[in-house]
Amino acid sequence: MGLELYLDLLSQHCRTVYIFAKKNNIPFEFKRVELFKDSILGRKMPGGNNPGHSREGQHCREEFGKVNILKKVPALKDGVFTLAESTAILLYLSRKYNTPDHWYPSDIQKRARVDEYLSWHHTNIRTNAPKTLWIKVLIPLFTGQKLPPEKLQEVMDELAISLKQFEEKFLQDKPFIVGSEISLADLVAIVELMQPVGADCNIFEGWPKLVAWRSQVEEAVRKELFQGAHERILNAQDLRKVQIDPQMKKEMKPLLLKMLK
Amino acid sequence: MGLELYLDLLSQHCRTVYIFAKKNNIPFEFKRVELFKDSILGRKMPGGNNPGHSREGQHCREEFGKVNILKKVPALKDGVFTLAESTAILLYLSRKYNTPDHWYPSDIQKRARVDEYLSWHHTNIRTNAPKTLWIKVLIPLFTGQKLPPEKLQEVMDELAISLKQFEEKFLQDKPFIVGSEISLADLVAIVELMQPVGADCNIFEGWPKLVAWRSQVEEAVRKELFQGAHERILNAQDLRKVQIDPQMKKEMKPLLLKMLK
Repeated sequence: MGLELYLDLLSQHCRTVYIFAKKNNIPFEFKRVELFKDSILGRKMPGGNNPGHSREGQHCREEFGKVNILKKVPALKDGVFTLAESTAILLYLSRKYNTPDHWYPSDIQKRARVDEYLSWHHTNIRTNAPKTLWIKVLIPLFTGQKLPPEKLQEVMDELAISLKQFEEKFLQDKPFIVGSEISLADLVAIVELMQPVGADCNIFEGWPKLVAWRSQVEEAVRKELFQGAHERILNAQDLRKVQIDPQMKKEMKPLLLKMLK
Repeated sequence: MGLELYLDLLSQHCRTVYIFAKKNNIPFEFKRVELFKDSILGRKMPGGNNPGHSREGQHCREEFGKVNILKKVPALKDGVFTLAESTAILLYLSRKYNTPDHWYPSDIQKRARVDEYLSWHHTNIRTNAPKTLWIKVLIPLFTGQKLPPEKLQEVMDELAISLKQFEEKFLQDKPFIVGSEISLADLVAIVELMQPVGADCNIFEGWPKLVAWRSQVEEAVRKELFQGAHERILNAQDLRKVQIDPQMKKEMKPLLLKMLK
């Protein structure tokens, strides 16, 4: 039994793993999970045996629950070994498949730069960027209510602070975070920043260095692969038709309405 | 010029680095930074040339600003190389000083378990545990106002969910996260969980497995070292007398009051 990856490409964490595996010709079976039906957003359990689900979907859901008891994507299964958390999966794949050194440089200082970014990312870009998509697209889908524009502005202001720090501390005047070559840090950063792009928030405006960096990252990855992985998130019409498990909707609605206050 | 670590042991991230360096006999110069005077909490700049600061303090503050332009602790300086983010610092030290394998196992699956925890940590235990200290001790110090008990209860409920996941997914029935030996994952987890303990929140009550694990981690580290590093955070009286830069207080107060609503 080969490598299996449980993914939904609406999730930025899944896209990072998908792009990395594809770019490095790592053979894997794509196990399709539906983020808003099969996974756990936040901490609540979505409905287990939802009659609206196909039998095939049900089977995949049961498999998935065994692969990651936290029911979060992405999840990896490699024989009997299972692994969650996109960063851990990326590092595991880089080691197991001995991917080119630039992704996670063996030079101790360069590697530390990648680790430094990957850690900073969690409480900065990862915290702010996806909120744009939630505010503009997902919360209205869950609650049937639009959010006041100040909510988005607050998040955009926070994100601008993260982008400024990203440019000044991490990117500086280099093509990539570590220097002249792409690393896991760039991939994790750009894919997270595509969530606001999917929500039609022009976050790159006024940041010429970040625009240049984005383009370099896309080219280093391969434009077609990058675009392909982002097809769903960048298709606003599809995005607004995303299917949500009714039980999940019911459970999440009060939490989301509370957030609006 | 040898290794320098810029630390304030009130910060859990600093204590992790401190304990790891001490436990592994890594020689370093302890550069004392005051979290509530010299660093940036959140994103605002604390007052630069505060007349209330000693000249010695001022000197250290200037040095610190060069070591980490984000002015966050912990920060490392090793010759001309500088590094932020505790996880990145731990990994750098483990590689540079070739610390015992169990801290970050060379076995690819065990290493992935450490990475998996270190990533999960950010959006779970790291998000919830320190809020207890903010709610019970720090916000009242900043704002002069006590918080309603529901605020603490909300955070404790969130933390209980994280602890449950920690036990079920990560610890299970093993002495340590990876198995029979301590790793960076255990150290990062326990030190974060000492913030609520410092705030007098009995978070380990009702979790016998976690109590046993805590004791094992303390022993693996060395009890005196662990206690020494936690002396300030566990001294409630000292904690309530912590000095806050007046400019920082002024800037943070409105943000914190907003959080109370």
